[in-house]
Amino acid sequence: MNAKERRQQLRIALIDAAERVISERGLVHLKARDLAEAVGCALGTIYNVFPDLDGLVLEVNLRTLILFEATIAAAQERAGGDGPEEAITDLTRLAVAYLAFAKAHPLRWRALFQHRLANEAAPPDWYLKEQVRLFRYIEEPLSRLCPYLHAHDRHLLARTIFSATHGVVSLGLDEKLLSLPPATLQGQVERVVQAMGRGLAGG
Amino acid sequence: MNAKERRQQLRIALIDAAERVISERGLVHLKARDLAEAVGCALGTIYNVFPDLDGLVLEVNLRTLILFEATIAAAQERAGGDGPEEAITDLTRLAVAYLAFAKAHPLRWRALFQHRLANEAAPPDWYLKEQVRLFRYIEEPLSRLCPYLHAHDRHLLARTIFSATHGVVSLGLDEKLLSLPPATLQGQVERVVQAMGRGLAGG
Repeated sequence: MNAKERRQQLRIALIDAAERVISERGLVHLKARDLAEAVGCALGTIYNVFPDLDGLVLEVNLRTLILFEATIAAAQERAGGDGPEEAITDLTRLAVAYLAFAKAHPLRWRALFQHRLANEAAPPDWYLKEQVRLFRYIEEPLSRLCPYLHAHDRHLLARTIFSATHGVVSLGLDEKLLSLPPATLQGQVERVVQAMGRGLAGG
Repeated sequence: MNAKERRQQLRIALIDAAERVISERGLVHLKARDLAEAVGCALGTIYNVFPDLDGLVLEVNLRTLILFEATIAAAQERAGGDGPEEAITDLTRLAVAYLAFAKAHPLRWRALFQHRLANEAAPPDWYLKEQVRLFRYIEEPLSRLCPYLHAHDRHLLARTIFSATHGVVSLGLDEKLLSLPPATLQGQVERVVQAMGRGLAGG
Protein backbone atom coordinates (compact mmCIF):
# COMPACT_ATOMS: atom_id res chain seq x y z
CA MET A 1 0.00 0.00 0.00
CA ASN A 2 1.55 3.30 -1.06
CA ALA A 3 1.33 6.60 0.82
CA LYS A 4 -1.66 7.81 -1.17
CA GLU A 5 -3.60 4.62 -0.44
CA ARG A 6 -2.70 4.76 3.25
CA ARG A 7 -3.89 8.34 3.40
CA GLN A 8 -7.16 7.40 1.71
CA GLN A 9 -7.65 4.48 4.11
CA LEU A 10 -7.04 6.74 7.10
CA ARG A 11 -9.45 9.30 5.68
CA ILE A 12 -12.24 6.74 5.48
CA ALA A 13 -11.45 5.33 8.93
CA LEU A 14 -11.70 8.84 10.38
CA ILE A 15 -15.04 9.54 8.68
CA ASP A 16 -16.35 6.17 9.93
CA ALA A 17 -15.22 6.95 13.48
CA ALA A 18 -16.73 10.45 13.37
CA GLU A 19 -19.96 9.03 11.97
CA ARG A 20 -20.18 6.60 14.89
CA VAL A 21 -19.64 9.35 17.48
CA ILE A 22 -22.15 11.69 15.83
CA SER A 23 -24.87 9.08 15.39
CA GLU A 24 -24.42 7.39 18.77
CA ARG A 25 -23.52 10.31 21.05
CA GLY A 26 -24.08 13.52 19.10
CA LEU A 27 -21.99 16.23 17.46
CA VAL A 28 -21.03 17.94 20.72
CA HIS A 29 -19.13 14.82 21.78
CA LEU A 30 -16.88 14.80 18.71
CA LYS A 31 -13.29 15.24 19.90
CA ALA A 32 -10.13 14.91 17.78
CA ARG A 33 -8.39 13.04 20.58
CA ASP A 34 -11.06 10.29 20.68
CA LEU A 35 -11.00 9.95 16.90
CA ALA A 36 -7.22 9.54 16.86
CA GLU A 37 -7.54 6.86 19.50
CA ALA A 38 -10.37 5.10 17.63
CA VAL A 39 -8.39 4.82 14.39
CA GLY A 40 -5.02 4.33 16.09
CA CYS A 41 -3.18 7.38 14.76
CA ALA A 42 -1.43 10.35 16.36
CA LEU A 43 -3.57 13.40 17.08
CA GLY A 44 -1.63 15.55 14.60
CA THR A 45 -2.07 12.99 11.82
CA ILE A 46 -5.77 13.84 11.59
CA TYR A 47 -4.78 17.28 10.36
CA ASN A 48 -2.67 15.80 7.57
CA VAL A 49 -5.88 14.39 6.16
CA PHE A 50 -8.47 17.03 7.10
CA PRO A 51 -7.70 20.75 7.49
CA ASP A 52 -9.86 20.75 10.65
CA LEU A 53 -12.68 18.82 12.33
CA ASP A 54 -15.18 20.84 10.28
CA GLY A 55 -14.09 19.05 7.14
CA LEU A 56 -14.71 15.74 8.84
CA VAL A 57 -18.18 16.79 10.08
CA LEU A 58 -19.12 17.91 6.57
CA GLU A 59 -18.22 14.44 5.27
CA VAL A 60 -20.43 12.82 7.91
CA ASN A 61 -23.23 15.28 7.14
CA LEU A 62 -22.89 14.46 3.45
CA ARG A 63 -23.37 10.77 4.31
CA THR A 64 -26.47 11.75 6.29
CA LEU A 65 -27.86 13.67 3.32
CA ILE A 66 -27.19 10.66 1.06
CA LEU A 67 -28.84 8.32 3.57
CA PHE A 68 -31.81 10.66 3.69
CA GLU A 69 -32.00 10.75 -0.09
CA ALA A 70 -32.14 6.94 -0.17
CA THR A 71 -35.10 7.11 2.23
CA ILE A 72 -37.08 9.66 0.25
CA ALA A 73 -36.24 8.04 -3.09
CA ALA A 74 -37.93 4.91 -1.67
CA ALA A 75 -40.97 7.00 -0.62
CA GLN A 76 -41.08 8.55 -4.05
CA GLU A 77 -43.48 6.21 -5.87
CA ARG A 78 -45.85 8.68 -7.37
CA ALA A 79 -49.51 8.62 -6.44
CA GLY A 80 -50.38 8.51 -10.12
CA GLY A 81 -52.28 11.32 -11.79
CA ASP A 82 -51.17 14.88 -12.40
CA GLY A 83 -53.78 16.85 -10.51
CA PRO A 84 -53.15 19.11 -7.50
CA GLU A 85 -54.43 16.48 -5.06
CA GLU A 86 -51.79 13.98 -6.22
CA ALA A 87 -49.08 16.65 -5.97
CA ILE A 88 -50.23 17.44 -2.42
CA THR A 89 -50.17 13.72 -1.58
CA ASP A 90 -46.59 13.52 -2.87
CA LEU A 91 -45.49 16.59 -0.89
CA THR A 92 -47.13 15.17 2.22
CA ARG A 93 -45.39 11.82 1.74
CA LEU A 94 -42.02 13.61 1.54
CA ALA A 95 -42.73 15.54 4.75
CA VAL A 96 -43.75 12.36 6.59
CA ALA A 97 -40.57 10.65 5.31
CA TYR A 98 -38.58 13.59 6.71
CA LEU A 99 -40.24 13.17 10.10
CA ALA A 100 -39.55 9.42 10.04
CA PHE A 101 -35.90 10.04 9.16
CA ALA A 102 -35.47 12.57 11.97
CA LYS A 103 -36.97 10.10 14.44
CA ALA A 104 -34.88 7.18 13.18
CA HIS A 105 -31.57 9.12 13.19
CA PRO A 106 -32.09 11.89 15.75
CA LEU A 107 -28.47 12.71 16.50
CA ARG A 108 -27.06 12.70 12.99
CA TRP A 109 -30.12 14.59 11.79
CA ARG A 110 -29.55 17.28 14.48
CA ALA A 111 -25.90 17.48 13.45
CA LEU A 112 -26.97 18.77 10.01
CA PHE A 113 -28.34 21.88 11.69
CA GLN A 114 -26.05 22.22 14.71
CA HIS A 115 -22.83 22.28 12.79
CA ARG A 116 -21.26 25.69 12.29
CA LEU A 117 -18.12 26.25 10.24
CA ALA A 118 -15.32 28.25 11.81
CA ASN A 119 -15.20 31.95 10.87
CA GLU A 120 -18.79 31.85 9.62
CA ALA A 121 -17.58 30.31 6.36
CA ALA A 122 -20.14 29.03 3.87
CA PRO A 123 -20.20 25.25 3.28
CA PRO A 124 -18.16 24.10 0.27
CA ASP A 125 -19.83 23.74 -3.14
CA TRP A 126 -19.91 19.93 -3.11
CA TYR A 127 -21.98 20.08 0.08
CA LEU A 128 -24.33 22.80 -1.17
CA LYS A 129 -24.88 20.85 -4.40
CA GLU A 130 -26.18 17.89 -2.42
CA GLN A 131 -28.61 20.20 -0.57
CA VAL A 132 -29.82 21.64 -3.87
CA ARG A 133 -30.29 18.13 -5.25
CA LEU A 134 -32.50 17.24 -2.28
CA PHE A 135 -34.72 20.29 -2.79
CA ARG A 136 -35.51 18.93 -6.25
CA TYR A 137 -37.60 16.22 -4.60
CA ILE A 138 -39.89 18.99 -3.37
CA GLU A 139 -39.68 21.00 -6.58
CA GLU A 140 -41.02 18.14 -8.69
CA PRO A 141 -44.51 17.88 -7.11
CA LEU A 142 -44.46 21.66 -6.64
CA SER A 143 -44.11 22.13 -10.40
CA ARG A 144 -47.29 20.08 -10.83
CA LEU A 145 -49.08 21.96 -8.03
CA CYS A 146 -48.07 25.46 -9.17
CA PRO A 147 -47.19 25.19 -12.88
CA TYR A 148 -47.27 29.00 -13.11
CA LEU A 149 -44.10 29.41 -11.01
CA HIS A 150 -40.80 30.42 -12.60
CA ALA A 151 -37.84 28.15 -11.81
CA HIS A 152 -36.23 30.60 -9.38
CA ASP A 153 -39.47 31.13 -7.51
CA ARG A 154 -40.20 27.39 -7.40
CA HIS A 155 -36.75 26.76 -5.97
CA LEU A 156 -37.33 29.39 -3.30
CA LEU A 157 -40.76 28.04 -2.42
CA ALA A 158 -39.38 24.49 -2.16
CA ARG A 159 -36.87 25.74 0.43
CA THR A 160 -39.63 27.53 2.29
CA ILE A 161 -41.87 24.45 2.34
CA PHE A 162 -38.90 22.44 3.60
CA SER A 163 -38.20 25.04 6.31
CA ALA A 164 -41.81 25.05 7.48
CA THR A 165 -41.86 21.24 7.64
CA HIS A 166 -38.52 21.25 9.42
CA GLY A 167 -39.93 23.66 12.02
CA VAL A 168 -42.88 21.40 12.79
CA VAL A 169 -40.66 18.29 12.93
CA SER A 170 -37.89 19.95 14.88
CA LEU A 171 -39.99 21.60 17.60
CA GLY A 172 -42.39 18.65 17.65
CA LEU A 173 -39.54 16.24 18.44
CA ASP A 174 -37.93 18.59 20.93
CA GLU A 175 -38.80 17.29 24.35
CA LYS A 176 -37.93 20.57 25.98
CA LEU A 177 -40.09 22.82 23.89
CA LEU A 178 -43.24 21.64 22.23
CA SER A 179 -42.87 17.88 22.23
CA LEU A 180 -45.89 16.06 20.78
CA PRO A 181 -46.88 12.36 20.91
CA PRO A 182 -45.68 10.59 17.72
CA ALA A 183 -49.11 10.00 16.13
CA THR A 184 -50.16 13.60 16.84
CA LEU A 185 -46.94 14.96 15.38
CA GLN A 186 -47.32 13.01 12.15
CA GLY A 187 -50.91 14.20 11.91
CA GLN A 188 -49.78 17.82 12.33
CA VAL A 189 -47.05 17.46 9.70
CA GLU A 190 -49.61 16.06 7.26
CA ARG A 191 -52.08 18.76 8.13
CA VAL A 192 -49.70 21.67 7.66
CA VAL A 193 -48.32 20.40 4.34
CA GLN A 194 -51.82 19.68 3.04
CA ALA A 195 -53.01 23.13 4.11
CA MET A 196 -50.00 24.78 2.41
CA GLY A 197 -50.56 22.66 -0.70
CA ARG A 198 -54.26 23.52 -0.94
CA GLY A 199 -53.58 27.18 -0.32
CA LEU A 200 -50.90 27.23 -3.03
CA ALA A 201 -53.08 25.34 -5.50
CA GLY A 202 -55.93 27.77 -4.87
CA GLY A 203 -53.75 30.91 -5.01
CA MET B 1 -32.15 46.80 53.83
CA ASN B 2 -32.86 43.44 55.43
CA ALA B 3 -31.56 40.05 54.27
CA LYS B 4 -34.63 39.34 52.18
CA GLU B 5 -34.37 42.66 50.36
CA ARG B 6 -30.65 42.16 49.74
CA ARG B 7 -31.35 38.74 48.33
CA GLN B 8 -34.04 40.15 46.06
CA GLN B 9 -31.71 42.92 44.89
CA LEU B 10 -28.96 40.41 44.10
CA ARG B 11 -31.46 38.24 42.26
CA ILE B 12 -32.44 41.10 39.97
CA ALA B 13 -28.81 42.17 39.45
CA LEU B 14 -27.95 38.61 38.40
CA ILE B 15 -30.86 38.40 35.95
CA ASP B 16 -29.85 41.80 34.53
CA ALA B 17 -26.25 40.65 34.11
CA ALA B 18 -27.28 37.35 32.50
CA GLU B 19 -29.66 39.22 30.19
CA ARG B 20 -26.78 41.44 29.03
CA VAL B 21 -24.51 38.47 28.31
CA ILE B 22 -27.23 36.53 26.48
CA SER B 23 -28.39 39.46 24.36
CA GLU B 24 -24.92 40.83 23.57
CA ARG B 25 -22.81 37.68 23.28
CA GLY B 26 -25.17 34.69 23.30
CA LEU B 27 -26.18 31.91 25.66
CA VAL B 28 -22.99 29.86 25.15
CA HIS B 29 -20.97 32.67 26.72
CA LEU B 30 -22.92 32.67 29.97
CA LYS B 31 -20.50 31.75 32.78
CA ALA B 32 -21.22 31.88 36.51
CA ARG B 33 -17.78 33.36 37.18
CA ASP B 34 -18.41 36.36 34.88
CA LEU B 35 -21.82 36.96 36.43
CA ALA B 36 -20.38 36.94 39.95
CA GLU B 37 -17.78 39.46 38.84
CA ALA B 38 -20.39 41.64 37.07
CA VAL B 39 -22.59 41.95 40.17
CA GLY B 40 -19.69 41.93 42.66
CA CYS B 41 -20.53 38.80 44.63
CA ALA B 42 -18.71 35.56 45.40
CA LEU B 43 -19.20 32.72 42.92
CA GLY B 44 -20.97 30.56 45.50
CA THR B 45 -23.40 33.34 46.38
CA ILE B 46 -25.14 32.93 43.01
CA TYR B 47 -26.26 29.48 44.15
CA ASN B 48 -27.84 30.92 47.29
CA VAL B 49 -30.20 32.77 44.99
CA PHE B 50 -30.62 30.37 42.05
CA PRO B 51 -30.39 26.58 42.34
CA ASP B 52 -28.30 26.58 39.12
CA LEU B 53 -27.62 28.68 36.01
CA ASP B 54 -30.67 27.10 34.36
CA GLY B 55 -32.94 28.97 36.73
CA LEU B 56 -31.24 32.21 35.73
CA VAL B 57 -31.54 31.46 32.00
CA LEU B 58 -35.25 30.71 32.42
CA GLU B 59 -35.71 34.14 34.02
CA VAL B 60 -33.96 35.80 31.07
CA ASN B 61 -36.00 33.73 28.61
CA LEU B 62 -39.17 34.76 30.44
CA ARG B 63 -38.16 38.40 29.94
CA THR B 64 -37.63 37.63 26.24
CA LEU B 65 -41.11 36.11 25.97
CA ILE B 66 -42.59 39.17 27.70
CA LEU B 67 -40.66 41.49 25.38
CA PHE B 68 -41.96 39.50 22.43
CA GLU B 69 -45.48 39.72 23.74
CA ALA B 70 -45.21 43.50 23.94
CA THR B 71 -44.15 43.49 20.27
CA ILE B 72 -47.02 41.34 19.05
CA ALA B 73 -49.57 43.08 21.23
CA ALA B 74 -48.58 46.26 19.37
CA ALA B 75 -48.99 44.46 16.02
CA GLN B 76 -52.36 43.19 17.16
CA GLU B 77 -54.66 45.92 15.85
CA ARG B 78 -57.22 43.86 14.04
CA ALA B 79 -57.74 44.26 10.33
CA GLY B 80 -61.47 44.73 10.95
CA GLY B 81 -64.03 42.26 9.65
CA ASP B 82 -64.56 38.65 10.65
CA GLY B 83 -64.04 36.86 7.36
CA PRO B 84 -61.30 34.32 6.61
CA GLU B 85 -59.24 36.90 4.68
CA GLU B 86 -59.03 39.16 7.75
CA ALA B 87 -58.07 36.20 9.92
CA ILE B 88 -55.32 35.28 7.43
CA THR B 89 -54.12 38.89 7.43
CA ASP B 90 -53.93 38.79 11.23
CA LEU B 91 -52.02 35.48 11.24
CA THR B 92 -49.62 36.84 8.63
CA ARG B 93 -49.03 39.99 10.66
CA LEU B 94 -48.15 37.87 13.69
CA ALA B 95 -45.68 35.81 11.65
CA VAL B 96 -44.03 38.93 10.24
CA ALA B 97 -43.79 40.35 13.78
CA TYR B 98 -42.09 37.12 14.83
CA LEU B 99 -39.55 37.47 12.02
CA ALA B 100 -38.93 41.12 12.95
CA PHE B 101 -38.41 40.17 16.60
CA ALA B 102 -35.96 37.40 15.71
CA LYS B 103 -33.99 39.84 13.54
CA ALA B 104 -34.01 42.59 16.17
CA HIS B 105 -32.97 40.31 19.06
CA PRO B 106 -31.11 37.43 17.39
CA LEU B 107 -29.13 36.16 20.36
CA ARG B 108 -31.82 36.29 23.01
CA TRP B 109 -34.29 34.82 20.54
CA ARG B 110 -31.91 31.90 19.81
CA ALA B 111 -31.48 31.38 23.55
CA LEU B 112 -35.18 30.48 23.82
CA PHE B 113 -34.51 27.41 21.67
CA GLN B 114 -30.90 26.60 22.58
CA HIS B 115 -31.45 26.33 26.27
CA ARG B 116 -31.66 22.80 27.65
CA LEU B 117 -32.42 22.05 31.29
CA ALA B 118 -30.13 19.64 33.11
CA ASN B 119 -31.34 16.03 33.29
CA GLU B 120 -33.87 16.62 30.49
CA ALA B 121 -36.21 18.25 33.00
CA ALA B 122 -39.33 19.97 31.71
CA PRO B 123 -39.49 23.77 32.16
CA PRO B 124 -41.35 24.92 35.29
CA ASP B 125 -45.07 25.69 35.13
CA TRP B 126 -44.67 29.47 35.33
CA TYR B 127 -42.55 29.33 32.17
CA LEU B 128 -44.89 26.98 30.29
CA LYS B 129 -47.84 29.20 31.21
CA GLU B 130 -46.19 32.14 29.47
CA GLN B 131 -45.69 30.01 26.34
CA VAL B 132 -49.35 28.95 26.40
CA ARG B 133 -50.39 32.59 26.77
CA LEU B 134 -48.41 33.49 23.66
CA PHE B 135 -50.07 30.76 21.59
CA ARG B 136 -53.41 32.44 22.32
CA TYR B 137 -52.38 35.25 19.96
CA ILE B 138 -52.43 32.67 17.16
CA GLU B 139 -55.52 30.89 18.46
CA GLU B 140 -57.64 34.03 18.28
CA PRO B 141 -57.49 34.55 14.46
CA LEU B 142 -57.47 30.77 14.05
CA SER B 143 -60.83 30.54 15.80
CA ARG B 144 -62.21 32.96 13.20
CA LEU B 145 -60.54 31.10 10.33
CA CYS B 146 -61.61 27.61 11.45
CA PRO B 147 -64.64 28.05 13.73
CA TYR B 148 -65.31 24.30 13.45
CA LEU B 149 -62.20 23.37 15.52
CA HIS B 150 -62.52 22.13 19.09
CA ALA B 151 -60.42 23.98 21.67
CA HIS B 152 -57.84 21.20 22.00
CA ASP B 153 -57.41 20.90 18.27
CA ARG B 154 -57.18 24.66 17.83
CA HIS B 155 -54.49 24.82 20.48
CA LEU B 156 -52.55 22.06 18.71
CA LEU B 157 -52.89 23.73 15.32
CA ALA B 158 -51.74 27.07 16.76
CA ARG B 159 -48.55 25.36 17.95
CA THR B 160 -48.08 23.76 14.56
CA ILE B 161 -48.54 27.06 12.71
CA PHE B 162 -46.05 28.62 15.08
CA SER B 163 -43.57 25.77 14.48
CA ALA B 164 -43.87 26.07 10.70
CA THR B 165 -43.33 29.84 10.90
CA HIS B 166 -40.42 29.33 13.26
CA GLY B 167 -38.83 26.89 10.77
CA VAL B 168 -39.01 29.41 7.93
CA VAL B 169 -37.68 32.24 10.14
CA SER B 170 -35.01 30.14 11.81
CA LEU B 171 -33.51 28.55 8.69
CA GLY B 172 -34.03 31.73 6.68
CA LEU B 173 -31.97 33.74 9.17
CA ASP B 174 -29.33 31.05 9.52
CA GLU B 175 -26.39 32.18 7.48
CA LYS B 176 -24.92 28.70 7.39
CA LEU B 177 -27.94 26.88 6.06
CA LEU B 178 -30.55 28.51 3.94
CA SER B 179 -29.98 32.20 4.52
CA LEU B 180 -32.24 34.45 2.45
CA PRO B 181 -32.09 38.21 1.77
CA PRO B 182 -34.35 40.07 4.26
CA ALA B 183 -37.06 41.16 1.77
CA THR B 184 -37.21 37.66 0.26
CA LEU B 185 -37.47 36.06 3.68
CA GLN B 186 -40.35 38.27 4.74
CA GLY B 187 -42.08 37.51 1.44
CA GLN B 188 -41.67 33.76 2.04
CA VAL B 189 -43.00 34.02 5.61
CA GLU B 190 -46.06 35.86 4.31
CA ARG B 191 -46.50 33.39 1.51
CA VAL B 192 -46.35 30.28 3.66
CA VAL B 193 -48.73 31.64 6.31
CA GLN B 194 -51.17 32.84 3.65
CA ALA B 195 -51.04 29.46 1.89
CA MET B 196 -51.64 27.63 5.20
CA GLY B 197 -54.46 30.02 6.06
CA ARG B 198 -56.19 29.60 2.70
CA GLY B 199 -55.76 25.84 2.82
CA LEU B 200 -57.23 25.70 6.32
CA ALA B 201 -60.12 28.01 5.43
CA GLY B 202 -60.92 25.84 2.39
CA GLY B 203 -60.57 22.52 4.20
